Amino acid sequence: MMDFAEILAARGRLAGRIHRTPVLRSHSLDRAAGCQVYCKAENLQRGGAFKIRGAMNRLLQLTPAERERGVVAFSSGNHAQAVALACRDLGVSAVLVMPADAPRLKIAAVRDFGGRVVLYDRAEQNREALARDMVVREGRLLIPPYDDPAIIAGSATAALELLEEVPELDALIAPVGGGGLLAGSILSALHLRPGLAIFGVEPETAADVKLSLAHGRICSITENPTIADGLRTQQPGRLTFPILQSSVREIFTVQDVELLQALRFFLERLKILVEPSGLAAAAAVLRGECKNFPRVGLILSGGNVDAEIILRAFKS
Amino acid sequence: MMDFAEILAARGRLAGRIHRTPVLRSHSLDRAAGCQVYCKAENLQRGGAFKIRGAMNRLLQLTPAERERGVVAFSSGNHAQAVALACRDLGVSAVLVMPADAPRLKIAAVRDFGGRVVLYDRAEQNREALARDMVVREGRLLIPPYDDPAIIAGSATAALELLEEVPELDALIAPVGGGGLLAGSILSALHLRPGLAIFGVEPETAADVKLSLAHGRICSITENPTIADGLRTQQPGRLTFPILQSSVREIFTVQDVELLQALRFFLERLKILVEPSGLAAAAAVLRGECKNFPRVGLILSGGNVDAEIILRAFKS
Repeated sequence: MMDFAEILAARGRLAGRIHRTPVLRSHSLDRAAGCQVYCKAENLQRGGAFKIRGAMNRLLQLTPAERERGVVAFSSGNHAQAVALACRDLGVSAVLVMPADAPRLKIAAVRDFGGRVVLYDRAEQNREALARDMVVREGRLLIPPYDDPAIIAGSATAALELLEEVPELDALIAPVGGGGLLAGSILSALHLRPGLAIFGVEPETAADVKLSLAHGRICSITENPTIADGLRTQQPGRLTFPILQSSVREIFTVQDVELLQALRFFLERLKILVEPSGLAAAAAVLRGECKNFPRVGLILSGGNVDAEIILRAFKS
Repeated sequence: MMDFAEILAARGRLAGRIHRTPVLRSHSLDRAAGCQVYCKAENLQRGGAFKIRGAMNRLLQLTPAERERGVVAFSSGNHAQAVALACRDLGVSAVLVMPADAPRLKIAAVRDFGGRVVLYDRAEQNREALARDMVVREGRLLIPPYDDPAIIAGSATAALELLEEVPELDALIAPVGGGGLLAGSILSALHLRPGLAIFGVEPETAADVKLSLAHGRICSITENPTIADGLRTQQPGRLTFPILQSSVREIFTVQDVELLQALRFFLERLKILVEPSGLAAAAAVLRGECKNFPRVGLILSGGNVDAEIILRAFKS
């Protein structure tokens, strides 16, 4: 298991380069959830998601030769945005391999940050093969979305900040895709608050972590549709899974309709825009899954959402 | 002029009863504005607006007899919500006189907070007469929306927090309706940052403060339509106007279309929902009005907006 010192080192590297996001409170949310909820608003983070924490931490550790040759990443959106943004800050060339059906806002943002976008067809093409082609042909370093110690250590700084600001939390709940955010949260919690109950939340149609934990080994699922585009991973990572296995109390699943309801709730009541993937844990909290814990830390992992989804939330 | 000690006393009274709202930064906003912008996010305040600061500060100073008899307020929305919410916290009965065409969300929120709502027709009825009727018949104390020393002192705590967090500001810009927020900001700034350049922003169709400052006396305008329902005041207050007159560098005006564009910008880029009235200063900043100042404090005064306005912002 990774050392807590790596998380502290990540925090030091990130200082001044990313936002310290606020912890938001809402009486309406507390009433709906049946507990006191402390929302770590990573939707207000640079690049619109917690992903900049891992990407920046990794990119700050490139060798001069790696910086020179540039990097490549494959991602449905938030990781691509984070890598493109961190690369712009650091003057590194970035190629982002993204599915053609990724949210338009995410693709536009990556281009806006100066990243070169290569679109692929989710059904027909293998994104990892495309990315590896960039690695071989252009000598670029692959920046994985979650299964990398520097990415996990960077992601861990969100929970680190939350636990420093609200040390008395009883539970922590976060969305889980590849598991980088949740694994990082566990590493921070193990050090700062060993007794903390830790929960993850996945879309019902992309519950690979729940399945894997039930079987005690990494299991793959087929790619299924969900509005939570950032949580469509088909299996947990080789590095993240053992960490999740060691400490996750339970994985909840949520439906798309609950994510849309949560989107509207957070917009109307808390006045913040959170994307469906970023709302997975929030939807579980709104359903009362944490009501037996007095003080619950909730990570809102991102806020990059197309207008069309916002409109859907108001029509549902 | 009011004493700074009253603002500090207000801050002490409010501690633990309202949120300390975050100061948000955004590279996209800085680029669009041509300066560094520090957003005091009062849309994330309790009741969805800065108004709770003044209302709570006033209500905490009720005598036991006043508490017993209850209060009445007239408001298009945010002040009504603030009074209803503070009254619920303090166990005081509240009647809120609101225009029938106020945003539905605001009327619903007031009822949700336990306030008794009395609707009136903007064209046919005089809201002050209705409220005064409550004062006479029910012995309720009238809580004015802005023209009251305790309301101004409470409103001043938003700029106080902002200036304590970012002492090196060069300019401060805020929306202006009756002038309570801007007057309070001036009182905080005079003490903490005497050289600060202070700007106010009104809708083009409700520019009573601009007109009054130009004439050197309080001038009234007819009530004109604007999407900024919270800034439809027809004249500045008797207490607020001299304060504005003493220190406002300039009043800018903005059009409804700029408010809708700003709403979308803040939602898509900063991931926060701000209502049209709350965006008046933001729209001026986005137009470049503060680009000659390196560091600008921007007050986002509220976030209570009907779904229909959000939909309009995405269609404009």
